[in-house]
Amino acid sequence: MRYEEFTIEGRNAVLEAFRSGKTIDKLFVQENSKDGPIQTILREAKKHDTIVRRVTKERLDQISETGKHQGIIAYAAAYEYAEVEDILKNAEEKGEPPFVILLDGIEDPHNLGAIIRTANLAGAHGVIILKNRAAGLTATVAKASAGALNYTPVAKVTNLVNTMESLKKRGLWFVCADMGGEEMYRLDLTGPIGLVIGGEGSGVGRLVRENCDMVAAIPMKGEIDSLNASVAAGVLAYEIVRQRLKR
Amino acid sequence: MRYEEFTIEGRNAVLEAFRSGKTIDKLFVQENSKDGPIQTILREAKKHDTIVRRVTKERLDQISETGKHQGIIAYAAAYEYAEVEDILKNAEEKGEPPFVILLDGIEDPHNLGAIIRTANLAGAHGVIILKNRAAGLTATVAKASAGALNYTPVAKVTNLVNTMESLKKRGLWFVCADMGGEEMYRLDLTGPIGLVIGGEGSGVGRLVRENCDMVAAIPMKGEIDSLNASVAAGVLAYEIVRQRLKR
Repeated sequence: MRYEEFTIEGRNAVLEAFRSGKTIDKLFVQENSKDGPIQTILREAKKHDTIVRRVTKERLDQISETGKHQGIIAYAAAYEYAEVEDILKNAEEKGEPPFVILLDGIEDPHNLGAIIRTANLAGAHGVIILKNRAAGLTATVAKASAGALNYTPVAKVTNLVNTMESLKKRGLWFVCADMGGEEMYRLDLTGPIGLVIGGEGSGVGRLVRENCDMVAAIPMKGEIDSLNASVAAGVLAYEIVRQRLKR
Repeated sequence: MRYEEFTIEGRNAVLEAFRSGKTIDKLFVQENSKDGPIQTILREAKKHDTIVRRVTKERLDQISETGKHQGIIAYAAAYEYAEVEDILKNAEEKGEPPFVILLDGIEDPHNLGAIIRTANLAGAHGVIILKNRAAGLTATVAKASAGALNYTPVAKVTNLVNTMESLKKRGLWFVCADMGGEEMYRLDLTGPIGLVIGGEGSGVGRLVRENCDMVAAIPMKGEIDSLNASVAAGVLAYEIVRQRLKR
């Protein structure tokens, strides 16, 4: 695995990247460009649910490393994503009840990296992130993960609720962090579990929250509203560790 | 309180800032400039243990907002520092056993901000940072603290061991986070306590560690070495919260 972030520039290179199955996190396309090759690339992007941003030529010139972008630049994932199935397999191989961390829209790459780092050390079997509202596995994330990205599988899904539903059929229970929940120490977090952490600004989405079996509250004494997302993930992940060790 | 970072530029402005008692986090001085006014400022800087960086004129031109730096620019703290005594008073007023977080060289402003945020919500009475090996209270720290800097006092000290010794006389016990310590769940963390968190790269310094009454280990299952510093601080602070609530 490698730590650089790829930018792929130019029509042929971008199209080839899609066709070779590389994961493209984001596509920057020059505004108003609509010719044949661009249309073909946009069709590929649609097929793969890739985020597309229309930008000015000046912006593309700024992003470009080669200076020859031909109106299109793709950001490719520096790391390969895992499948949700790989995460369950990881738990099974270790003979442990699954422990998965799901992120409902973490946007800060430092937070994402720190959470993958926590997942690794707390013994979580993998991390599931959202395709459209999250930081991708960029070089910044890799660096902030302090190497954990080499060991802890990260899967990317389109719809968190659907993923939760299919994981429930595999025996997982879901707990999300939210104010107004039950104090985390009073919940039983020892079984096969999915820990859902909300995004930095908005917290856990309503539908996701409704699909959780438990809502855990971290006790809070101070004047402000909430912990940093990666700190909250750490505190909750380690409450799961504590309960599992006690068992 | 305000969120901007001050830069103070020019000889008179910088000298006046020192004399008015403003906290200067860092001083940038043009290399090779040795005239009278610069010498006077350097003497003030020495008196206040201010960090001094010798830089090129080009670097000063870059940093400068006014374009008139006269070979000297100071970074002033956007927030006023508290005294260690204020932190103890804070605990006393709340009728709680003191709970202080000491940082042995946190350099990343995002981590520092996240730790101040955690301190606020975990009910710590204040944070103590090191003068020479730490991020100052800049705008980035303020932002990452999500407002906690308005409520949780932060004191800056020159020597952590000296501060620990004087706090021990006031009844505090010290616990630091380090590998090879006792599993944190088995320690009694309910009394008046100072939690020492090491810097991002180097962890807790040897002398500081030797002056701790307890060394706490966070259980770690994964392949990598350590949690992010602000996550580790959160996990340990919340173990203290858990034990205090149980009592």
